[in-house]
This record gives sequence, structure tokens and C-alpha cells, in this order.
Amino acid sequence: MLTVENKIKVRYQETDQMGVVYHGNYLVWFEIGRTEYVNKLGLKYTELEGLGYYSPVIDINIHYKKPVTYGQTVTVKTSLESYNGIRTVYAYEIYDEKGDLAVTGNSTHVVVRQTNFTPVLMRRIYPHWHQAFIDQVSED
Amino acid sequence: MLTVENKIKVRYQETDQMGVVYHGNYLVWFEIGRTEYVNKLGLKYTELEGLGYYSPVIDINIHYKKPVTYGQTVTVKTSLESYNGIRTVYAYEIYDEKGDLAVTGNSTHVVVRQTNFTPVLMRRIYPHWHQAFIDQVSED
Amino acid sequence: MLTVENKIKVRYQETDQMGVVYHGNYLVWFEIGRTEYVNKLGLKYTELEGLGYYSPVIDINIHYKKPVTYGQTVTVKTSLESYNGIRTVYAYEIYDEKGDLAVTGNSTHVVVRQTNFTPVLMRRIYPHWHQAFIDQVSED
Amino acid sequence: MLTVENKIKVRYQETDQMGVVYHGNYLVWFEIGRTEYVNKLGLKYTELEGLGYYSPVIDINIHYKKPVTYGQTVTVKTSLESYNGIRTVYAYEIYDEKGDLAVTGNSTHVVVRQTNFTPVLMRRIYPHWHQAFIDQVSED
Repeated sequence: MLTVENKIKVRYQETDQMGVVYHGNYLVWFEIGRTEYVNKLGLKYTELEGLGYYSPVIDINIHYKKPVTYGQTVTVKTSLESYNGIRTVYAYEIYDEKGDLAVTGNSTHVVVRQTNFTPVLMRRIYPHWHQAFIDQVSED
Repeated sequence: MLTVENKIKVRYQETDQMGVVYHGNYLVWFEIGRTEYVNKLGLKYTELEGLGYYSPVIDINIHYKKPVTYGQTVTVKTSLESYNGIRTVYAYEIYDEKGDLAVTGNSTHVVVRQTNFTPVLMRRIYPHWHQAFIDQVSED
Repeated sequence: MLTVENKIKVRYQETDQMGVVYHGNYLVWFEIGRTEYVNKLGLKYTELEGLGYYSPVIDINIHYKKPVTYGQTVTVKTSLESYNGIRTVYAYEIYDEKGDLAVTGNSTHVVVRQTNFTPVLMRRIYPHWHQAFIDQVSED
Repeated sequence: MLTVENKIKVRYQETDQMGVVYHGNYLVWFEIGRTEYVNKLGLKYTELEGLGYYSPVIDINIHYKKPVTYGQTVTVKTSLESYNGIRTVYAYEIYDEKGDLAVTGNSTHVVVRQTNFTPVLMRRIYPHWHQAFIDQVSED
């Protein structure tokens, strides 16, 4: 199964007065990770929005193991934990510059109509995306 | 002329590793200030957006005099610097909990169509707002 | 057991291009909730930091049930889920302006030395806080 | 004189409900620009902080010419507008993916002691940085 890596340089703005990255900002890095994951499969989130849909997050779990500091370039590793045609679960591992595991987590997403936020089936509205994800989860 | 005051409790998330409020976050407080200013005149920004328009900022100047720290409740004073039917300039003063002037600034706004970001005249699309602002600037 | 309520007016800056509050920003509201919770017990997070400690989050779970939009004032309800002298778990419920449950979640915290982020016992470094939390969890 | 370029991929989190980058986020990109500028001269902001100093912003001017949207990779061009041993002024130009000028601005910085935020002379505390900046401004 595909694992995608992103290198992210910590921004000063991402720190807080603890002198480390503010805990909420890892969610932004997760987002960068899953966007890249989707891109690597030849898909584009902007296309999904162009078709009249959003893919909001419905669930996030995040575990903080080691604080990350300004000046570092971290590595975000993103993979697909599961996909059942309705819910997509991405898994993330963030490593600091020394290679230590700093943060792990996952996020669950659905696809909804922009007009009313009601869920739709990826298979119906973007079959190419559906197939690419099915291929990933049936690969092991 | 009307001056509107907002009390804002500094959020931990708003600090950076200098141990003070991150400089970009004062722009968010300016926004809270001008929203309240407009509300006090009996207008609503959400109504403007509901009509199919946005009011983006085209210019900001900001002067940092004294850092603000977590734990404080600051006061944002917002007034109208000028309005000519096209451009609205709001002026801001932010005072820390001791009453010292921490930040001053202003922001210039236009109104644009949501579809293509082309400017429109407030008088045409929201005459009530136009009149309220004209009343303010001709009051001195 | 104590439940603390915060009213929070959604900030324009907190939205994203889905037209709803960006999912990461609920973590900021959780933070406001637990700060208020601690305050209601007569404690102050700034005091803890003044003593040379931080209380970082080590775990967050968050469930998104309904998107929240700009213009609303939400209610954050915060309570203590558990406390064992080392780990504190806060539980959160966020209600939108209609009273619908929009977001739920919890966060787990430890207390660490500022110099090296090693964990300490709350009982040793801030016994008053320890006692207040013990009182809460033994109340049912 | 040196001009430094940064490519920045717009983050979803950086948008707001206007469907464009939130105006406050350009300040973050300015920060990335000046950090890179300093790096290109062989200097490191983290070193300055390691020595016991901060370099806070005291003044920002920003002009918004064209909104930037998600999905784009922008270019930030940073140069030194002036340096007098006390105040450093950086100038920024942000170009969207089509090459259109989207945002311009500048920011003024001083150097202060971390303990009390009183200004210091760069020449005294970090002569190498001082000389590198003097070289830049006397080059034309």
C-alpha cells in the first residue's frame, strides 16, 4: 500500500508560548499529507470541489509523543487505513528532524453535497477516485 | 463619531514562542472590532454576503507598540476613519489590560461581487449601510 | 460534577472555503473550555506556567456531527472525564446556536517541567490543583 | 541587492469562506520570506533567539491587489528595503501562479532582549548579521 511523505518546515507562526508547535497545527499537517496522498494517486481535491462536493472530516484521533520545535523540518507519512465507499480513514505519522516519532493520528472523511452537506457515494460522483481507493485497500 | 469597544480574552493559541501574541493575530481582532462596529449601526456583515457580495480588505497598516501576553483581556476600539462610497477605512486601537496602547492600525475595504470580485457601489447594493456610514463621516 | 459553559462567537477567520468553521479550530475552543473549567475551580493555568510547568495535551479525540457557520454563537460545555494524579481528561460538547450538538471530544493532559518536558505529579507541584480535581472525580 | 524567492503551496486551512486566502495569512508568508532571506545571507534566526534576543515586528503595511485561491503555488519575493543598525525593513511581493502580483507589503523589525523587550543594537550582539545587512544596503 502507498505511503506518501511530505517534508514540512515548521513555521514560526505555528509555535506557541510553550516554545513548541501548537497542538492544533498538526491537523493542518495531516491535511497536507492527505492532499498529497490523493495527488499521488492522480486525483485532485480541487476537482472534487469543482464537481459540487466537499470531503469534510468527521472524526480525528491524535496522539502527541514528542514536541516539535521551530527550525526543524518534519516528515509527514500518510497512508490509507481503510475505505468502504462511504468513509475514508487516513493514517498519519509525523517524524521530527532526528527521525523520532512525534505525532500519530488518523482522520475519517465522508463526501457531501456542497448545497446541504448530505453524504454521497464516491462511486457515484467520482468513480475514478473510488476505484483508486478500492485498489489501495485491496492490495495487501 | 461612534467608537465601538470589544473586550477580547487572549487565547493560548494566539501566542507564539516569543511568549506574546503572534503579530498576525491582531488582524483577527481588528476584524472582530469592525464587525461589532457595523453591528452597532444596525447592520450585519452576514446580510451583505447573503446579498451576493463580499467586503475584502485591500490595505492594512499596523503599528506594534507593546507586546500583549496570554492571560490578559484586551480592549479593541474601532472607529470609522473615512468612507467615500467606495472605500471604507476603519481605525483601530488595542489597549492591554493595564490600559497601555499596545497596537494601532487601520484597514481599507471595498465591496465586491462574489462571482468575480469586481467592485460595486455600496449605495446601489445596500443603501441602508451606505447611509449609516455617510451619517458617521459627516457627523463631526 | 462541574460542567462549565463558554459562549463563543464564531470569528470570520475561523471559517474555511467550505463556508463552515475549519475543523482544526474546535481544538482552540476546547482550550478555552478547559481554561474556564480550571478557573471555575479557583485555579489559574498562568500560575502553573509561572511555577515552571506546562500542561501539554498528549491525546485528542474529536467527532464532528454538524458544521458550524459564521454568525453563530456556540456553547462549549466542558467537564472532567477523569483524573488520576498524572493524566487529566477533559470532555467537551459544542452546541450550535439552535442547540444542536455540533462537536464532541476529549483531550488528555499531563504536567511537565518547562526545562525538559519530563512529567511531574500535580500533587507535588501544585497540591491545591490536585485536590480540586480529586474532589471533582470523587463527587458522583 | 539580493532578492529571495519562496514557493508556497496554499494550504486549505489558509482559506476563509470568501473562497480565497484569509488576509491575515499573508503575514505568515512574509515571515517565511524574511527567514529565507536571512538564511541566504548565511544567518539563522534561531541563533539570534539562542543568544537571548527576539526580532519582533513593529510595523506592517500590506496591500491586497488580487485574491489567491487554494490549489495555487505562490511565489514570495523578499528583499531588504532598508537597514540602519536599529530598524530592518523587508519588502515583499507575492505573485500568484499565473505570475500576477497579488500582494505587496513591508515589515519593520527591531532586535530586543528576551527578558524585557528592550531594543539592542544588532552590531553589538550579532556583528556578523549587522555586517551582512550593511553590505546589502550599500550595494546599489
